[in-house]
Amino acid sequence: MLGNFTYCNPTKLYFGQNALDNLGEELKRYGQTVMLVYGGGSIKRNGIYDRVVSILRNCGKRIVEDPGVMPNPTVEKLYEGCRIAKENRVDLILAVGGGSVCDYSKAVSVSAYCEGDPWEKYFVRFEDVDNAIIPVGCVLTMVGTGSEMNGGSVITNHSQKLKIGHVFGENVFPKFSVLNPEFTFTLPKYQMVAGFFDIMSHILEQYFSGTDDNTSDYIMEGLLRSLIHSAEIAVQNPTDYEARSNIMWIATWALNTLVAKGKATDWEVHMIGQAVGAHTDATHGMTLSAVSLAYYRHILPYGLPKFRRYAVNVWNVSPEGKTDEAVAREGLEAMERWMRMLGLVMNIRELGATEEMLEGIADSTLINQGGYKALTRQDVLEILRESL
Amino acid sequence: MLGNFTYCNPTKLYFGQNALDNLGEELKRYGQTVMLVYGGGSIKRNGIYDRVVSILRNCGKRIVEDPGVMPNPTVEKLYEGCRIAKENRVDLILAVGGGSVCDYSKAVSVSAYCEGDPWEKYFVRFEDVDNAIIPVGCVLTMVGTGSEMNGGSVITNHSQKLKIGHVFGENVFPKFSVLNPEFTFTLPKYQMVAGFFDIMSHILEQYFSGTDDNTSDYIMEGLLRSLIHSAEIAVQNPTDYEARSNIMWIATWALNTLVAKGKATDWEVHMIGQAVGAHTDATHGMTLSAVSLAYYRHILPYGLPKFRRYAVNVWNVSPEGKTDEAVAREGLEAMERWMRMLGLVMNIRELGATEEMLEGIADSTLINQGGYKALTRQDVLEILRESL
Repeated sequence: MLGNFTYCNPTKLYFGQNALDNLGEELKRYGQTVMLVYGGGSIKRNGIYDRVVSILRNCGKRIVEDPGVMPNPTVEKLYEGCRIAKENRVDLILAVGGGSVCDYSKAVSVSAYCEGDPWEKYFVRFEDVDNAIIPVGCVLTMVGTGSEMNGGSVITNHSQKLKIGHVFGENVFPKFSVLNPEFTFTLPKYQMVAGFFDIMSHILEQYFSGTDDNTSDYIMEGLLRSLIHSAEIAVQNPTDYEARSNIMWIATWALNTLVAKGKATDWEVHMIGQAVGAHTDATHGMTLSAVSLAYYRHILPYGLPKFRRYAVNVWNVSPEGKTDEAVAREGLEAMERWMRMLGLVMNIRELGATEEMLEGIADSTLINQGGYKALTRQDVLEILRESL
Repeated sequence: MLGNFTYCNPTKLYFGQNALDNLGEELKRYGQTVMLVYGGGSIKRNGIYDRVVSILRNCGKRIVEDPGVMPNPTVEKLYEGCRIAKENRVDLILAVGGGSVCDYSKAVSVSAYCEGDPWEKYFVRFEDVDNAIIPVGCVLTMVGTGSEMNGGSVITNHSQKLKIGHVFGENVFPKFSVLNPEFTFTLPKYQMVAGFFDIMSHILEQYFSGTDDNTSDYIMEGLLRSLIHSAEIAVQNPTDYEARSNIMWIATWALNTLVAKGKATDWEVHMIGQAVGAHTDATHGMTLSAVSLAYYRHILPYGLPKFRRYAVNVWNVSPEGKTDEAVAREGLEAMERWMRMLGLVMNIRELGATEEMLEGIADSTLINQGGYKALTRQDVLEILRESL
């Protein structure tokens, strides 16, 4: 049931092949100093860096560079970014990259003027932001996280073996995001399909809860069907604009707070996947694909009607003459075939996890309420073993 | 295909049984004088008026009343509202009512400081707004139009037999809207189901265009399935909170610009229905229900694959062993059964239209491009005859 909630998503999206043309007009709203945040340098090879810098220069901006954001941004990198932002009195943080770059930029935006340790305050204690926030804009080069239109930010602390996400409020959402599907074309296939599964996982984490009748579930079924269809096309032809543009749009709506309305969620696939990531530094989407089927088969008995609905409405499983459980399991089998067709990683061993690491990964797994089964540490261990 | 577009929807929504509790906090953002706009007085009978006035008084606001907004707000009423708003230097227009009250409030908000005739400028010539805009907030008591989260405003000019809508930009969108499903419980059944069909029609107007693969269509199929299901429950039990809350939420997302992305639309059911409304003053949703099936059966041959998809994905028509046209027609038959079950008006004669009026209604019908068939005046006449 849709309960009481507030919905507000002020992020302005520029979508399409000409989306970057709007950056200059947006930049006029902000002061002179722009912190340009990016990752390992792929944007220099594909020309996006030059195009963005040219627009910044034409707008008379002073550019402060903060490159080298890693796939799982670390707390050490966060401290460095805060120092750069504060020392240069940055007026706007411009994130050019994928989810990690956007997540990191939001973390810096709330942390730069934080009194005390921002890791402790925002990622361990989940406190509300009570300091000045530096506005963030995004130019997206990889889809999956939905970070371009939400308040989410995930930071990894390797020494503590923790990878923790904080979902900040609308004052931390990017002010604008530039979404040109073509900017995602040059991404290697491994990262591309990992992103596809990240999107799938975002939707499923929100879909698999509740026994009520909620419009959010119907919207999610639509998003899932579109994603499944477009991913099948994109994996064959990564430069199919129609498929890639649909996927970019689905990624945004999968995690911009809309479909969460009225849903309880425990995000346990992400909790387990993030723990795997903290121990292996594997690609985020692949940590999710490697544990998802074991997780869903584990909780299926506790949410059987929804798993049956998923099979019928999303995977077109015919329910006639079958038990509910048979229908539900057929849905997960269809999902597994689709995942293998995409070339996703299907076990955590391939990501570097070993039998000996499982106890440690289980220790790093946060356990939430809200799904069909409140997991125990033993459940997590069993899921990890089945994922090995 | 998703082309180039900008998406920005800044309206803040307060949803649920406690939604009105947020009004006081919102009011603090605006100046002292609030223009309270409402309709025929039903809000006085059901207590919502007293609750809103009490909150306004507690916030120390000066209240300027503008009651009596009619179901199809007239240009004369608009002129009166502009005079009241301007003379009182209104800081906020608070619309308490359904789509007509919200539409009218937005029309006043852009027209009060318009130089020249706002009807001519904004509803005949569709010019951009270049004058000061008075902010609008809404407390919704009837669902259907989606006016609570968009820039749409429809005004009727009886002397010119014209009912015209202008979709204004995001600066005209309501700043906030209070959506309490319980506020819609006391609406008479005739208005309730008319609103349900208005929602259905908004989605279908956007769904029936294009031959591409577009995520918007998948989202709309989800919204339609949820609407069909919840409407069946609500018509039996109008105080079923779950069904009414889902419908309220669907109404908002059916017409807040999201599902329009990448879609060409001609809105011809609305164009014909609005012409019927201008000649009969009938309830908006009923003018749409009375002409929809004739219209869709008329254009079905031009968009056959989409009508087939509609039948299968929305109405669960089994396609096996049938021609595409048979499947498509079965979908419209299922829709017709659902419409009759709701008790919708199925012909325009029941709304007061006569054979003699059809030429005049056709003359008042605006013809747009973007659907599966660009209508001729002859097409419109045929659809009207089939709707009689």
